[in-house]
Amino acid sequence: MSSHDDCIFCKIIAGKIPCTKIYENDSLLAFMDINPLNTGHLLVVPKEHFETVFEMNPELYGALYAALATIAKAVQAAVQPDGATVMQLNGEAASQVVPHLHVHLVPRTFGDGLPISSWQEKSGDMDNIRSVAEKIRAQL
Amino acid sequence: MSSHDDCIFCKIIAGKIPCTKIYENDSLLAFMDINPLNTGHLLVVPKEHFETVFEMNPELYGALYAALATIAKAVQAAVQPDGATVMQLNGEAASQVVPHLHVHLVPRTFGDGLPISSWQEKSGDMDNIRSVAEKIRAQL
Repeated sequence: MSSHDDCIFCKIIAGKIPCTKIYENDSLLAFMDINPLNTGHLLVVPKEHFETVFEMNPELYGALYAALATIAKAVQAAVQPDGATVMQLNGEAASQVVPHLHVHLVPRTFGDGLPISSWQEKSGDMDNIRSVAEKIRAQL
Repeated sequence: MSSHDDCIFCKIIAGKIPCTKIYENDSLLAFMDINPLNTGHLLVVPKEHFETVFEMNPELYGALYAALATIAKAVQAAVQPDGATVMQLNGEAASQVVPHLHVHLVPRTFGDGLPISSWQEKSGDMDNIRSVAEKIRAQL
């Protein structure tokens, strides 16, 4: 299993830095974010070091979220939020800070004013959308 | 399979409203967002109607993301973004608009200025974090 000496999440996984653990199995670890956006904000990370979704095997990527869905129900029972934002940032262009892939579960409350996942919808150019779709399908 | 008559995504899944399809299998459909935040913005949805992660079975929730990870690599090859934000909004409090669960894959480019997934980190109260964690673990 690849691990990076200078990666803070690899150190947490190795037990060299403490965390507030929620759940773990052979391939993943869930622990509380120490800079929470809201009560109950937690992270799910693969134990093996991957930087982004682009390098990760799809089954393991899916497994992170299967665990997250189970944990989300526990968060709902424990914290009773009004909703939740699930997000995973890939690359500096997406404001990823720690370069070890992690999925955020952020409980939401009405009026929390968090600067995430809210935007003004704007219609796209359908010709352009179809042409991009064709390029993506050609790579599948 | 439960379907809701007044749900726009159920209508797309049933073929009553057209979409620009990227991929589908028995349980999920991926198609282009018609209000894209950036080139290549697409959605992955379960064919069965679920509103949020809180109601969905964890395996199917994970399967959406396993498919998304495969599609992300195709988007990377086709569109060559600098990164990507993967996000899934649960409930009005999280700004969910269409109440049929959907995962966004938003390709990111440096300087795109999208008002998503960027925030100022603020240290949390560790006693509070530990006490919330205990409540969540008690529900697992």
